[in-house]
Amino acid sequence: MMRTRPLKVALLGCGVVGSEVARIMTTHADDLAARIGAPVELAGVAVRRAGKARAGIAPELITTDATALVKRGDIDVVVEVIGGIEPARGLITTAFEHGASVVSANKALLAQEGADLHAAAEQHGRDLYYEAAVAGAIPLIRPLRESLAGDKVNRVLGIVNGTTNFILDKMDSTGAGYQEALDEATALGYAEADPTADVEGFDAAAKAAILAGIAFHTRVRLDDVYREGMTEVTASDFASAREMGCTIKLLAICERAEDGGSVTARVHPAMIPLTHPLASVRGAYNAVFVESDAAGQLMFYGPGAGGSPTASAVLGDLVAVCRNRLNGATGPGESAYAALPVSSMGEVVTRYHISLDVADKPGVLAQVATVFAEHGVSIDTVRQQGKDGEASLVVVTHRASDASLTGTVEALRKLDTVRGVASIMRVEGE
Amino acid sequence: MMRTRPLKVALLGCGVVGSEVARIMTTHADDLAARIGAPVELAGVAVRRAGKARAGIAPELITTDATALVKRGDIDVVVEVIGGIEPARGLITTAFEHGASVVSANKALLAQEGADLHAAAEQHGRDLYYEAAVAGAIPLIRPLRESLAGDKVNRVLGIVNGTTNFILDKMDSTGAGYQEALDEATALGYAEADPTADVEGFDAAAKAAILAGIAFHTRVRLDDVYREGMTEVTASDFASAREMGCTIKLLAICERAEDGGSVTARVHPAMIPLTHPLASVRGAYNAVFVESDAAGQLMFYGPGAGGSPTASAVLGDLVAVCRNRLNGATGPGESAYAALPVSSMGEVVTRYHISLDVADKPGVLAQVATVFAEHGVSIDTVRQQGKDGEASLVVVTHRASDASLTGTVEALRKLDTVRGVASIMRVEGE
Repeated sequence: MMRTRPLKVALLGCGVVGSEVARIMTTHADDLAARIGAPVELAGVAVRRAGKARAGIAPELITTDATALVKRGDIDVVVEVIGGIEPARGLITTAFEHGASVVSANKALLAQEGADLHAAAEQHGRDLYYEAAVAGAIPLIRPLRESLAGDKVNRVLGIVNGTTNFILDKMDSTGAGYQEALDEATALGYAEADPTADVEGFDAAAKAAILAGIAFHTRVRLDDVYREGMTEVTASDFASAREMGCTIKLLAICERAEDGGSVTARVHPAMIPLTHPLASVRGAYNAVFVESDAAGQLMFYGPGAGGSPTASAVLGDLVAVCRNRLNGATGPGESAYAALPVSSMGEVVTRYHISLDVADKPGVLAQVATVFAEHGVSIDTVRQQGKDGEASLVVVTHRASDASLTGTVEALRKLDTVRGVASIMRVEGE
Repeated sequence: MMRTRPLKVALLGCGVVGSEVARIMTTHADDLAARIGAPVELAGVAVRRAGKARAGIAPELITTDATALVKRGDIDVVVEVIGGIEPARGLITTAFEHGASVVSANKALLAQEGADLHAAAEQHGRDLYYEAAVAGAIPLIRPLRESLAGDKVNRVLGIVNGTTNFILDKMDSTGAGYQEALDEATALGYAEADPTADVEGFDAAAKAAILAGIAFHTRVRLDDVYREGMTEVTASDFASAREMGCTIKLLAICERAEDGGSVTARVHPAMIPLTHPLASVRGAYNAVFVESDAAGQLMFYGPGAGGSPTASAVLGDLVAVCRNRLNGATGPGESAYAALPVSSMGEVVTRYHISLDVADKPGVLAQVATVFAEHGVSIDTVRQQGKDGEASLVVVTHRASDASLTGTVEALRKLDTVRGVASIMRVEGE
C-alpha cells in the first residue's frame, strides 16, 4: 500500500555524484516509490556556488545555505556527497539533531569520525548509511554488516582504489614506469591533478579503516591504519614479481590475528600470485576478497568510483533508509562490541621479497643468511646473480613479523658486503 | 542495550546445513547476541528420524513432530533447511500463521511457490528471507534486493551450480569426456548419486527464477525458465570453444528485453570468452555477474554450496530477521510491482556457434549461407574444413533471435548437402 505524502530528501553537494543522484531520483521516481512504498521528493539541493544551471533540477530547489536546508525540520533524509571533514561533519550532526537520517559517500569523514557520527545517529534514533564510501557501487558494507552477520570474518583483502590500480595495471601490461603511467591516468581523467590522496594510499587507508571496523565489529580509526603509497614501485619490481609468478597491486588488508585477540589494518603495494582472483582485476576496477570461518572465500568486484556507480550505491542506501523511516525502525548501527585492540604494523605477519645489491665475493650469502637467522626470519628461497664484481641477492622469506623483517633489514644495511637494499615488497594472497 | 529474554529459533532439518547452523548458533552465541541485541536460543530441532545422536544438540530439543514445533506459539524464527516442496511448504505456512518469521534455504520451493509464501508472510506481518537458496554463501539476494534497490538491473549472468561447474572445468582442463568428469565429481562428493537435478539444469533453473524475480521486480516462476542441461557437451565442443577464445559454462541468464517491456530467464551451456571474469571460475565455485544502468558491471564470487557456506547465509538472514523482530518491523518483502511478462526462449537474442557436417562439394557454403539469410540470421564468421569427401562448416552468427536460429537449423537439416548438425552452442558474455 502506497503512502502518498512523499519522503523529503535534501541533497548536499551537486557535483559528479550529486547530479547523478538527482537525475536518477527524477527519472526513476516511479520505481523508487514502488520499492520504498512512498514517493520520494527532492526537497532542496545545497551547492557551493549558486547561479550555475543544473540540468533537471528546478532552480528554486538550489540553495547555498546547506545549514538552513538541514535545519528545515521537514527533511526525512539528508544525502551528503560533499566529501571532506568540514562542513560535512557539522551538517550531518545537525541533520540528526533535526530528525533526518543520513546517507553519505564520505570515506574520509567516516574513517575519521565514524564513531561519533554513529553515536549521534543512535542518540537521535536515526540511520547513518554509507555504502558508497567504500568501493563505489560494489556492495560491501551491507554484505559485511548484514549478510555475514552470522559469520566470523578473518580477513579482508582488497583493491579499493581505482586510480592506483589503473596505474599499476598499466605498468604491468606495458612496462611503463610510474610517472609515465600516472601521466596517462591523469590524461584519461583517472587521476586528479594532485594525485596524492590516491597514490600515497590515503584514500585506500580510509576505506581500510571503515572495512576493518565493520568486518571485525570493532573500532578502527584512520590513524590505526599503516599506510605506504605506491610511488616507489618500479618497472624492475614488476620484473621481479613476474619471476615469482606474481603481479603487484596496492592492497588494503584487514586481518584478525591468529589468536583472535587483535586486528590489523594496512595499505601498501604487495606482490600477489597471478592465480589469485585479485591479480586479474584490470584498469580502474575494484575488488574485495573476504575470508570468513563459515562462508570461506568470497569476492566482490565492480567499478570503484565514478558518478553513476557511486550514485547507485547512494540510492540503494536511500531506499533502505526511507523504508526504515516508514517502518519507524532503524537499520543496523555501529557494531563495535568486540572492542579489539588494533596492533601496530610490527606485529603483522606476512612474507617478503627482498632485493639486495651485494659484493660478488665468497661468503656473502652465508653472512646474509646469518642475519636473517639471527632475527628469526626463515628464508624460503634465495637467488644470486653476479655481474662485474657486484651481485644481487633476491631473498623470499617464509612468514615473519614486520618487526623481525625491519630488524633484519637494518642489520643487513650495516654489513660491509651489502651495498644497498634495492627493494622490499610484501607477498600476499597465498 | 541487550534484551535478556532470548529469541527462540526452531530448526527444521538437521542434515549437513542444519547441523552446521546449530553448531554455529552454539559456538558463536555471544557474537550473535551482540549483533542482534538479544540472545537467540535453539528451541527445537525437527528431524525425520529420532534416536540418532546429534553432536552439540541437547537430546530433549530433538523432535520428529515438525508441525507441533512450528505451532508451539513461542517460536520467533523458523529456519527451514529440509528442502523440497512438501512438507516444507506446509510447515512454513503454519509458521507464519503461528507468528514466526522464516529463514529458508529452499530454492525449489521459493522458485515454485515464492509468490504464495511471500503473500503469507506479508499477511501475517512476518519476514521470509532466503539468501542461502541461491549460490550458498555468496551475498546475492540482499545486494539485488537492497544494495541495487535504487538502480535498474538489466542482466544477471551466473554460474549458480557448483556440480556442473566442477564437471565442465574438469572437461576443459583435462580433455575428459562428460561421463569421466561426472564420475570424478561423484567420487569426490561434488555430484549426488542421482545427478539429474544438477546436470539437467533443474537446480540452476530454480535459482534463475528467484534471481530474475528479485532483479526485475516481477514474478518469474520455475516454469518460465527455459532449461537445457549440459550432458550433451563434448570434448569436441571444448575444442571448438578454444578456437573461439572461449570456454563452456552452464549459465543462468536473466535479461530485460532491450525495450524494457519483458524479461527472459534461461539455463543452458554456453561459450563465454576466456577474458570474461566468469570464465576463470574454477571447480565447484559459483559466481554471478550483474549489469545495471548506474552501477555497471558487478560480480559476486564464492562457494555455492556446502554445509558451512550455506549455514553462513542462513545465519546472516537469522540475524537480520531477529533484528527486525526486536524492531517490530519487517524487511523488504516480495517486490513484483513491475509485473513484466516473461517472454519465451524464441524471443531471446544472442549469438550462436553451429557445427555442420556437410558434403565436400562446390556450392555448399552458398546454399548454407542462403538459408541463414532467408531466416534473417546474419553470419559473423564461417570456417570450412574438408576431409575425404566430407567437410565441416563452423558458422558463428551475429545476434539473432532463438526462433530465427531454430528456423534456420530446421531448414539446414532439410538440405541434401547437410549430413548433420553436429552442435549448436550459444555464445554469451561479449
